[in-house]
Amino acid sequence: MTMAADNRPANAVPRTANRDPYTPQTLLEVAVEVFNERGYDGTSMEHLSRAAGISKSSIYHHVRSKEELLRRAVSHALDGLFAVLDEPAARHGRAVDRLEHVTRRTTLTLIERLPYVTLLLRVRGNTGTERWALERRREFDHRVAELLRQAVSEGDLRADVDVRLATRLLFGMINSIAEWYRPGRGDAASAQEITEAVVTTAFGGLRLRQ
Amino acid sequence: MTMAADNRPANAVPRTANRDPYTPQTLLEVAVEVFNERGYDGTSMEHLSRAAGISKSSIYHHVRSKEELLRRAVSHALDGLFAVLDEPAARHGRAVDRLEHVTRRTTLTLIERLPYVTLLLRVRGNTGTERWALERRREFDHRVAELLRQAVSEGDLRADVDVRLATRLLFGMINSIAEWYRPGRGDAASAQEITEAVVTTAFGGLRLRQ
Repeated sequence: MTMAADNRPANAVPRTANRDPYTPQTLLEVAVEVFNERGYDGTSMEHLSRAAGISKSSIYHHVRSKEELLRRAVSHALDGLFAVLDEPAARHGRAVDRLEHVTRRTTLTLIERLPYVTLLLRVRGNTGTERWALERRREFDHRVAELLRQAVSEGDLRADVDVRLATRLLFGMINSIAEWYRPGRGDAASAQEITEAVVTTAFGGLRLRQ
Repeated sequence: MTMAADNRPANAVPRTANRDPYTPQTLLEVAVEVFNERGYDGTSMEHLSRAAGISKSSIYHHVRSKEELLRRAVSHALDGLFAVLDEPAARHGRAVDRLEHVTRRTTLTLIERLPYVTLLLRVRGNTGTERWALERRREFDHRVAELLRQAVSEGDLRADVDVRLATRLLFGMINSIAEWYRPGRGDAASAQEITEAVVTTAFGGLRLRQ
């Protein structure tokens, strides 16, 4: 979890079955942590109840179902990502600059909403909510691919790498951050360093320009 | 599975509990497919028995345990990857050229051994075999990071991206292929196209050099 300790009621209030210290938001944080650890399919309401330290009926006081928790969690990730596409710098200017802006802000959003985007990236498609999330992800990818295509046609990006392949490799690089980045670990790079490394590597390449 | 249909005995011989058409290798192929679909933790010997269409005792005729199947599978992936580091072009010459060779051959190996490397990349660390596989993966990453470090010090790679970060982003790009590449699908790029796209993007960058 990326949340500060003081946002976690479970740290402040002893977890007992008699007391429900949660808001919908803080319960969601716990659920996302459990989903990422056990997998969504492998998580039962019983697991959530144990992790939160409150009864199942207390959880049902906040949400109708496990799937509703998933929907809220992946919505938080998707809202952050789609908001990037609406930023002025993503909408005006040369396509290559808009693409670079989207790459930078997508990477920062992934890091800021790390557990939520991690969950989104692991969605499999077994439920309606998961299929909806996969569809939204595809839509996001298409919009970025379209920017890439435009930047190639404006002569700013190389034409010798297929646009679909380039989009996949770019997201491969960005999304891999969810697999290895653990904020707060001593040796961890900052969000800013990681973001600049992604932009520099993807657009400039590792090889030194002579 | 990347195997041709005629390598799959189950397609040639009706699957019945009375007949065991498997060699250790073809049984391994089935097991890897099931592990990738259900997750290693989520797969029981019962699942393997049903997928292979032979009894559990027939499976135990080939292997001692589920973990032995995992060990054989991830070994096949790791052997292929480590063999790349022993190739002459990975051992002699300027570090940047060795790194480019390793990048190209690692990508091709991932594609050639797709189900095996996919399984390796999903290993979690719950068993001794998994922890061993994770340790070997780290060793491979360290050797590539070392090459990258050398190429920076020889003045061929940019020094403004941290070596550990650059290694992670490079592998992020390569390993993502396991998530989206489905060989044989009509729109799929060839292994060669994907490999060249990885090398071009990672070393040259997407931005056109003026």
